[in-house]
Amino acid sequence: MVSLGIDIGGMSMKCGFVDDNGKILSKFVVKIDKSKNQLEMIEALISDIKKAMIEQNYSSSDLRGIGIGCPGSINVSTGTCDFSGNLGWRDLPIVKLIEEGIGEVKARLINDANAAAVGEAMFGAGNGKKDVLLLTLGTGVGGGVITGGLLLEGNMGKGAELGHNLLVMNGRQCTCGRKGCMEAYCSATALMNDTKEAMKAHKESSMWTRCEGSIDNVDGKTAFEEAKKGDKAAIEVRDNYVMYLGEGIINFINIFRPTVIILGGGVSNQREGLLEPLSKYLEAHGWGFGGTACPKPELVVSCLGNDAGIIGAAAMFMERK
Amino acid sequence: MVSLGIDIGGMSMKCGFVDDNGKILSKFVVKIDKSKNQLEMIEALISDIKKAMIEQNYSSSDLRGIGIGCPGSINVSTGTCDFSGNLGWRDLPIVKLIEEGIGEVKARLINDANAAAVGEAMFGAGNGKKDVLLLTLGTGVGGGVITGGLLLEGNMGKGAELGHNLLVMNGRQCTCGRKGCMEAYCSATALMNDTKEAMKAHKESSMWTRCEGSIDNVDGKTAFEEAKKGDKAAIEVRDNYVMYLGEGIINFINIFRPTVIILGGGVSNQREGLLEPLSKYLEAHGWGFGGTACPKPELVVSCLGNDAGIIGAAAMFMERK
Repeated sequence: MVSLGIDIGGMSMKCGFVDDNGKILSKFVVKIDKSKNQLEMIEALISDIKKAMIEQNYSSSDLRGIGIGCPGSINVSTGTCDFSGNLGWRDLPIVKLIEEGIGEVKARLINDANAAAVGEAMFGAGNGKKDVLLLTLGTGVGGGVITGGLLLEGNMGKGAELGHNLLVMNGRQCTCGRKGCMEAYCSATALMNDTKEAMKAHKESSMWTRCEGSIDNVDGKTAFEEAKKGDKAAIEVRDNYVMYLGEGIINFINIFRPTVIILGGGVSNQREGLLEPLSKYLEAHGWGFGGTACPKPELVVSCLGNDAGIIGAAAMFMERK
Repeated sequence: MVSLGIDIGGMSMKCGFVDDNGKILSKFVVKIDKSKNQLEMIEALISDIKKAMIEQNYSSSDLRGIGIGCPGSINVSTGTCDFSGNLGWRDLPIVKLIEEGIGEVKARLINDANAAAVGEAMFGAGNGKKDVLLLTLGTGVGGGVITGGLLLEGNMGKGAELGHNLLVMNGRQCTCGRKGCMEAYCSATALMNDTKEAMKAHKESSMWTRCEGSIDNVDGKTAFEEAKKGDKAAIEVRDNYVMYLGEGIINFINIFRPTVIILGGGVSNQREGLLEPLSKYLEAHGWGFGGTACPKPELVVSCLGNDAGIIGAAAMFMERK
């Protein structure tokens, strides 16, 4: 038997039939047409699921269930997307619509970042470990936590908003309305803003050459790549970023004491360029409360890439071994 | 059958036989004699447990188990207290010693703050709810989390160090070595220090009258009590304290999304004097990420007092209903 995992993003819904070993047997993508209303978007998804089931020769009884990783503010108890600004969704009863549309199969919602965390923890960089922290460093900072082998969801699945843990009291404005959240310092967006500020202050920086003289060419790699070459302004941006990320991670070590910390999202593509200075920072700060009496978590980069969300969403229905 | 709960503190070990409804049937206290070495301290405990079992007419087979709430850095996997500065313990295999000393009964360690959280969540102010946050505002800031009905412990039981979540980057020195932890702003100790500073800056404050002219008479109530009477300097201390506590709590709402938040420890004795301004602060800040799409947690004061730790430690062995 297989489980269907769906990872809803801002532009498309990535779907895959997944076996009990976390292997994706076949994939399909449903493009999101933003000219449609929310019900029509879900109808398009249902129609494509049905097509894919026919193509792959699956009936409802071959499916353990349909796991749906969803962005925005969701309620896993009612199976509803309360609000997604990006998709324009409001009070959308996704689980009910999918269950009625497909028939004779169970569906369940999961927060999209949590789905990725479950995927990476069970079948990716977490390698089945029981205490896993995943942080995605992209447009925002998302995350998921497996603690004692179980996903931390909070009431109605509304917890684990790790990007909105404070780093600086009354600090930078965050998109969530609060000031000083980790997301405002550790997202790729924040990194790019910091890079631009540093370039404006340092006309001599090699980052200008890399960007061909235009600040519009700054991306998440600019500072990290030029720091490797020894550019002082770039090193300052990188070290500052690593300091904030390090403090944010120490918070989560103190709270969750994971055995493995997985970094995902655009900034994690730096791999050793990020892991090395970050490990040094964490080492210098004792890996959090308890110091030597506590084991050092592993620090790794995610390895399932865009598949993590599909696999994690499907995993809600897999047979446990 | 009953379970024995033990709450080890800095001065004494409080013990109680607890039934499956969380009711303490009988209590006894083992004073800690700091002139003894660590093995002798545990021997004294074992001897008093045996005496109490004889008095209460319990044999080992009447006990479901012995739960031990322990301060310092512990390892619940090995049953060892790795380090307790206050008690002078180091690498002390408590579980093994107790199991061998009593015979034919299982023992287990639990972090002392976690024990209190379990007690309050199951049988106290949490009233059996599944997503509960407990914060103790005493000499330090401790805490415990029940999420999805299960205790958050982290690898080896070394997580849930909630007092050491950051509020201010590079802020006040914390006892843990880090700078800017919640504990450095929200403990009773921090509140008293802030009260003293405010008094030094405001010779006209009514806090001086309350303290009979001596700053040595400041306690955790000074600022809260005089704030009620309208003293400006006291109001500033209280509101500042509430702001830091509020931000710390919003962090935990974002992470755990509890349905009930329980405040314990000395500062919580202010009851409405604390709950009222704190609720206002949380309300004004939308109770964290998600705003109106998220339900508002209840905010209450702990009700089991000093018994919470005994009951929570015993609860590890109770028959679940």
